[in-house]
Amino acid sequence: MQRYFPVLNPLGLIILIFSLLMGIPLSVSWLHADNALTAYDESIFITFAFGLLLWATTRSRKRDLRVRDGFLLVVLTWVALPVFAALPLWLYVPDMSFTDAYFEATSGLTATGATVMSGLDSLPISINFWRTFLHWIGGMGVIVLAVAILPLLGIGGRQMFKAETPGPMKESSLTPRIAETAKGLWVVYLLLTVACTSSLTAVGMEFWDALMHAFSIMGLGGFSTKDASLGHFNSVPIELVAMSFALLSGINFATHFMALRQRSPKAYLKDPELPFYFGVLTVSIIALSLYLSTFNVYDGFANTLRYVAFHTISLSTSLGFATSDYTFWPMFAQLWILFLGSFIACSGSTGGGIKLMRAIILYKQVFREVVRAIHPSAIKPVRLGKAQITDKILHAVLAFSFIYMVTIVSLTLVLSATGLELITAFSAVIACLNNTGPGLNAVGPASTYAVLTDFQTWVCAFAMLLGRLELFTLIVVLTPAFWRK
Amino acid sequence: MQRYFPVLNPLGLIILIFSLLMGIPLSVSWLHADNALTAYDESIFITFAFGLLLWATTRSRKRDLRVRDGFLLVVLTWVALPVFAALPLWLYVPDMSFTDAYFEATSGLTATGATVMSGLDSLPISINFWRTFLHWIGGMGVIVLAVAILPLLGIGGRQMFKAETPGPMKESSLTPRIAETAKGLWVVYLLLTVACTSSLTAVGMEFWDALMHAFSIMGLGGFSTKDASLGHFNSVPIELVAMSFALLSGINFATHFMALRQRSPKAYLKDPELPFYFGVLTVSIIALSLYLSTFNVYDGFANTLRYVAFHTISLSTSLGFATSDYTFWPMFAQLWILFLGSFIACSGSTGGGIKLMRAIILYKQVFREVVRAIHPSAIKPVRLGKAQITDKILHAVLAFSFIYMVTIVSLTLVLSATGLELITAFSAVIACLNNTGPGLNAVGPASTYAVLTDFQTWVCAFAMLLGRLELFTLIVVLTPAFWRK
Ligand SMILES: [K+]
Ligand SMILES: [K+]
Repeated sequence: MQRYFPVLNPLGLIILIFSLLMGIPLSVSWLHADNALTAYDESIFITFAFGLLLWATTRSRKRDLRVRDGFLLVVLTWVALPVFAALPLWLYVPDMSFTDAYFEATSGLTATGATVMSGLDSLPISINFWRTFLHWIGGMGVIVLAVAILPLLGIGGRQMFKAETPGPMKESSLTPRIAETAKGLWVVYLLLTVACTSSLTAVGMEFWDALMHAFSIMGLGGFSTKDASLGHFNSVPIELVAMSFALLSGINFATHFMALRQRSPKAYLKDPELPFYFGVLTVSIIALSLYLSTFNVYDGFANTLRYVAFHTISLSTSLGFATSDYTFWPMFAQLWILFLGSFIACSGSTGGGIKLMRAIILYKQVFREVVRAIHPSAIKPVRLGKAQITDKILHAVLAFSFIYMVTIVSLTLVLSATGLELITAFSAVIACLNNTGPGLNAVGPASTYAVLTDFQTWVCAFAMLLGRLELFTLIVVLTPAFWRK
Repeated sequence: MQRYFPVLNPLGLIILIFSLLMGIPLSVSWLHADNALTAYDESIFITFAFGLLLWATTRSRKRDLRVRDGFLLVVLTWVALPVFAALPLWLYVPDMSFTDAYFEATSGLTATGATVMSGLDSLPISINFWRTFLHWIGGMGVIVLAVAILPLLGIGGRQMFKAETPGPMKESSLTPRIAETAKGLWVVYLLLTVACTSSLTAVGMEFWDALMHAFSIMGLGGFSTKDASLGHFNSVPIELVAMSFALLSGINFATHFMALRQRSPKAYLKDPELPFYFGVLTVSIIALSLYLSTFNVYDGFANTLRYVAFHTISLSTSLGFATSDYTFWPMFAQLWILFLGSFIACSGSTGGGIKLMRAIILYKQVFREVVRAIHPSAIKPVRLGKAQITDKILHAVLAFSFIYMVTIVSLTLVLSATGLELITAFSAVIACLNNTGPGLNAVGPASTYAVLTDFQTWVCAFAMLLGRLELFTLIVVLTPAFWRK
């Protein structure tokens, strides 16, 4: 057991800090006198006590973290925090099982936004605050994970993104550079959240709703304070603000950071993902609007464009807000958006899926294989911007996308084996693995994940974690080889 | 135009030979006086005349074939032959559109076995003979393609299979070694067909039915002479014979060849695919039988085992015979078999899908990436038996499986965009791309592909060709880069 102390010690500290964050919804509850105070005091006490105990008992063996420790710490953090995050929900909401509470908390922290709860409009404000705040904290975690930690762990070719990381990168120990990098990124994240909240209030949203929706948008989470999601407001300006900030959150935060530090938009022009990001989204929105027009799903082209643009951006960036029940769209349009959501979010963003960078590398490698078949001798290395993609990274990216597809097939088979209808099963897996939130059919935007059995709920929570931890981080820890001395 | 003469000349010769093969169903028709003679005489004349004309006009520019010519010749052969193969069906069957006739002929030659025809039991015997004979010819073509041609073209990592190829391999020109290799493999194919026909008659099938079903089994095609497929006979011994020869056809014919030449089963023991082939199938059959038992789909476990074993082997090797409407099985069991069919057939067999060899390489590479994540420095090369998998092959295999999955997604989206229900669309794509034949729902074993619109029919025919030509061969020829001087 003692060999895990160096990992358990920082985990204790993280849980300790997390208990302090729970003080924020407590304050919100007190401020609004929403009668939910009891949900937090016990939760805070349990979390604080557990964190302190874990930290104190494992202090004896402090040493620098190694790569293998990094895997374990990341996985334990993302598995353990939802347990504590679930407490306020479990304690407060009547008849909520621990399974459902854990699912909701995981969905919050992984910024997935799939919910098992209904009647959101009448919940105490602090409960909704907690749900969306989890997205925001999760979003912070995701950015650090994506920009600072996964590249060091070398997950799925992420080592190639090292170069973009701001901050000093020379130390051999993990901790200082992660901290340095995180600080810069969080400033950007905080500034954008403030901008999003102000913009939402400027277009007519009440402050607290604006704040909670800003949390959801910045983390690309998708929890809303309304059962009808953003459709509740039925406001084009609000939708435009949400779309703009969802697009910003889908961009690499390291690029935002560079642009801010250099006080120049040059960083955006140099980001190799952005031409694809905006190009694919623009073409998709125009094509789908034309396609939906022929089916007269909405009255008139302007109206069609409004709903198509919103759902394409919201679902494919993995935000997951809905303003209309898109399950009435022709199946092709739904599938197309599901498909986009698998790769459109940029690396280093708060979005889910395999990330645009990997999709571009895959596209270039396939194209190279075609050229190789025609001219076997004239083979050029795969390039991205000025960087050359090494074979090692190519292997890692190809293996990553392969395991991504195998995961979709396997988990769909598992859900299907437990009796779930196929399209529901398939779309639930995609929506959870990509951290999008709503799926199709029984888990579509007009319904909730409450229809799932306990076992299916756990499978979906597992899929969210897999997606957020970029598959390998979690899979590695689940292999016997990892635990061998 | 003249630069394509070296490709068009052998194509003319192939069409010429094909017209002679049409003499065989003509003889069958004459022998049985089945009143279908008129279907063949015009077809033979048109095919012969076209082949002769093409061959004669392009003789002037003979030269050795290069790799690029190889691609074009393979693609043109597989696209053009169904046009001529379709003639007897188009001319004879009342109300059959050319689209349907081309689909049926493509399904025959690619050994897919998806049919748009019903009322098979009352068709003239020579028409059914022609359909199943197409499977048999196609099977021959597939073996040569897989063992001799694709490795030279270097498709999807196939160059690694070169070593197994029997016959001299030193010439720099393609033709002699392909001819040499083909001869040895065809002897094995012919012997197994004779054995299969005899075995089927031995267990009670009438000779002509036995011959036609043997054609279907050896090519892993799946056309039957009965609307109820092999279920028509309702005989366990017939099913056992069909299963045994389907299993044999799913094995690399180069291995059969070696075993025959060495008069020893040692070649089978050395084949690195076989432990996985039999292992995965055995485990799947046992697991699915137990699973289906809990749903009481069939009376008793023995009965369940009979139907599960038959359909697992028939569908996953890509034969595609059915003895029962498996669309009434729980969806998970159907999906599992569909999934198996994507990879279980060995390389160099007449089966479809990505081939077991590639699946094993993918599995090993993913496993290596997991190990790499834990021990970044201790990286061993991927091995298969005694052979080391080079990076070039690894890239090719990874790119191949990626494009395979992208193809499934894209074609499903296309079929879905034309209004086809999702599970039908998805399973039709899988069943055609894997050259299995029957799919699920509307294209399940109790129905035919006649429900598709003309456009959807062409998409499915395209999928069959893509699958049979191992994707890259066809995709390469469709790129502008291929046609540039
Ligand atoms: K989301
Ligand atoms: K078949």
